[in-house]
Amino acid sequence: MGFTLTVIGCGSATPVGHRLSSAFILKRENQTFMIDCGEASQLFLKDHQVRMQRIGQIYISHLHGDHFFGLVGLLSSMHLFGRKHPLHLFAPPALEQIIQMQLDAGGTVLQYPLVFHPTQDRTEALLYEDDGLEVRSFPLNHGLPTTGFLFREKERQRSISKTFLEEHSLSPEEMWRIRRGEDYTDQQGVVWPNAEITRPSRLTPKSFAYCSDTIYDESIIPYIRNVDLLYHETTFLEGEAELAESRFHTTARQAAMIAKKAEAKKLLVGHYSARYKGIQCFVDEASEIFDDVVAASEGLVLDI
Amino acid sequence: MGFTLTVIGCGSATPVGHRLSSAFILKRENQTFMIDCGEASQLFLKDHQVRMQRIGQIYISHLHGDHFFGLVGLLSSMHLFGRKHPLHLFAPPALEQIIQMQLDAGGTVLQYPLVFHPTQDRTEALLYEDDGLEVRSFPLNHGLPTTGFLFREKERQRSISKTFLEEHSLSPEEMWRIRRGEDYTDQQGVVWPNAEITRPSRLTPKSFAYCSDTIYDESIIPYIRNVDLLYHETTFLEGEAELAESRFHTTARQAAMIAKKAEAKKLLVGHYSARYKGIQCFVDEASEIFDDVVAASEGLVLDI
Repeated sequence: MGFTLTVIGCGSATPVGHRLSSAFILKRENQTFMIDCGEASQLFLKDHQVRMQRIGQIYISHLHGDHFFGLVGLLSSMHLFGRKHPLHLFAPPALEQIIQMQLDAGGTVLQYPLVFHPTQDRTEALLYEDDGLEVRSFPLNHGLPTTGFLFREKERQRSISKTFLEEHSLSPEEMWRIRRGEDYTDQQGVVWPNAEITRPSRLTPKSFAYCSDTIYDESIIPYIRNVDLLYHETTFLEGEAELAESRFHTTARQAAMIAKKAEAKKLLVGHYSARYKGIQCFVDEASEIFDDVVAASEGLVLDI
Repeated sequence: MGFTLTVIGCGSATPVGHRLSSAFILKRENQTFMIDCGEASQLFLKDHQVRMQRIGQIYISHLHGDHFFGLVGLLSSMHLFGRKHPLHLFAPPALEQIIQMQLDAGGTVLQYPLVFHPTQDRTEALLYEDDGLEVRSFPLNHGLPTTGFLFREKERQRSISKTFLEEHSLSPEEMWRIRRGEDYTDQQGVVWPNAEITRPSRLTPKSFAYCSDTIYDESIIPYIRNVDLLYHETTFLEGEAELAESRFHTTARQAAMIAKKAEAKKLLVGHYSARYKGIQCFVDEASEIFDDVVAASEGLVLDI
């Protein structure tokens, strides 16, 4: 299966032209996740084939405005367009009251359940899990409570042999158990060892790590090791390494160092400072250290 | 002198395409006022030749999100771009804490004075006054505390006769006093009656009234009588008059009735519901009642 990542916005705090601030959409099977939600994100979802009401979970990394000022507008629009099904929001604790105050001020009572899951930035945490996927947060070092997010598919379920399926009338629950590795006992009491009636899935589980915003910090490497796609902020180029450090941000070269040490398969750079013209310079600098670098831009779609 | 009004956004609460929610810029001499600030307003100011840091005062009519969700982002950007001079914000009281909580969450301490002036919706109030202009708020009926705003130029200063200026060496303060109607006493003690040495300005004072959002309500007429330009919301057409009333909104026909009864010179319609295709239908309906109707659209500039 794997993921599809769509970049809605990848600028940094100061607006420049029509570059939006941070917002990403991650799709997997029939699930749609949003990661960060800068101002105006909701206005551009449709341009990038994202249906607002399909978003089931939103993850907010930290409470600098360029990562959440678009959220309350999106939540309001979901309500105005008639949403009834739940939305799960994973974010620093203070965001719950910030949203509620704004809805209260306008007399808005959301007609769908908004389920708030406060994040914490001290240790790694499992935020969400289902049969095929888990989502974890891990601490980032950005001068205020900030987390990265890791979306990782679980080992694929095993495939049941076609011959065995034809010869046995299995219930959905029996198939589910066999796919998860259990042996099968038929009606005659014969035990069929799982290894004989299944084979491992040919699909390898995929993973995506999101690291925005952070100073250069090797302590994140254990959390993101071997990811298929690493999004790591590159607010600055190496010429501004001191400024980057003083503002708890990263240079393109430093992001590439993290990608290399974590043995990521691909590096996506973004969160560009408004001081630079164009984005190729970030790819060029990172590519001196790491082979497979892609520059985020509004509307970019990556299959993972 | 007069005003120049620029429409930044004129949609209603539910986003449609790239129509922005309410935001207007009013310029007069070297002053720039903003009225309402829907999400993403800051991203489009430059497109319409508005320099963010020139905005000296912002007026927020009420706390439905489509009238203020863009404000905190704009305030943050003014800070990030180095603003040091004050910004005056006139808005319902609850907005002060809403802004402060969001800035606090990100650890932002604004580097310019943000002077908050709470509005009240019970009676007319004088919000701002200088030599040439006054700004008043007045109650609108929208189901939650809401005010309209009236920008009205004062009577122009009188012009001093050219001959008199040539024959007398006047200090700036003496000129200022004469222009405001005082007699002049020269160094010999001769009194020159003001009417003999000045004439009235040929320029007539201009006015602009902003009425969004409101149910059809004739009680606003005394506040807006004879305005040169009346912006009155037209969320619906007359076919949805019942819906308009139930949601405390107005139809295009009703807005035209208000304009006619208030003897406004020109009516600007906007705040269109997303259910209608195009905006000419609002002009057509209003024009059956009132002669001079203009439809707001993003980027429209009107000289008043």
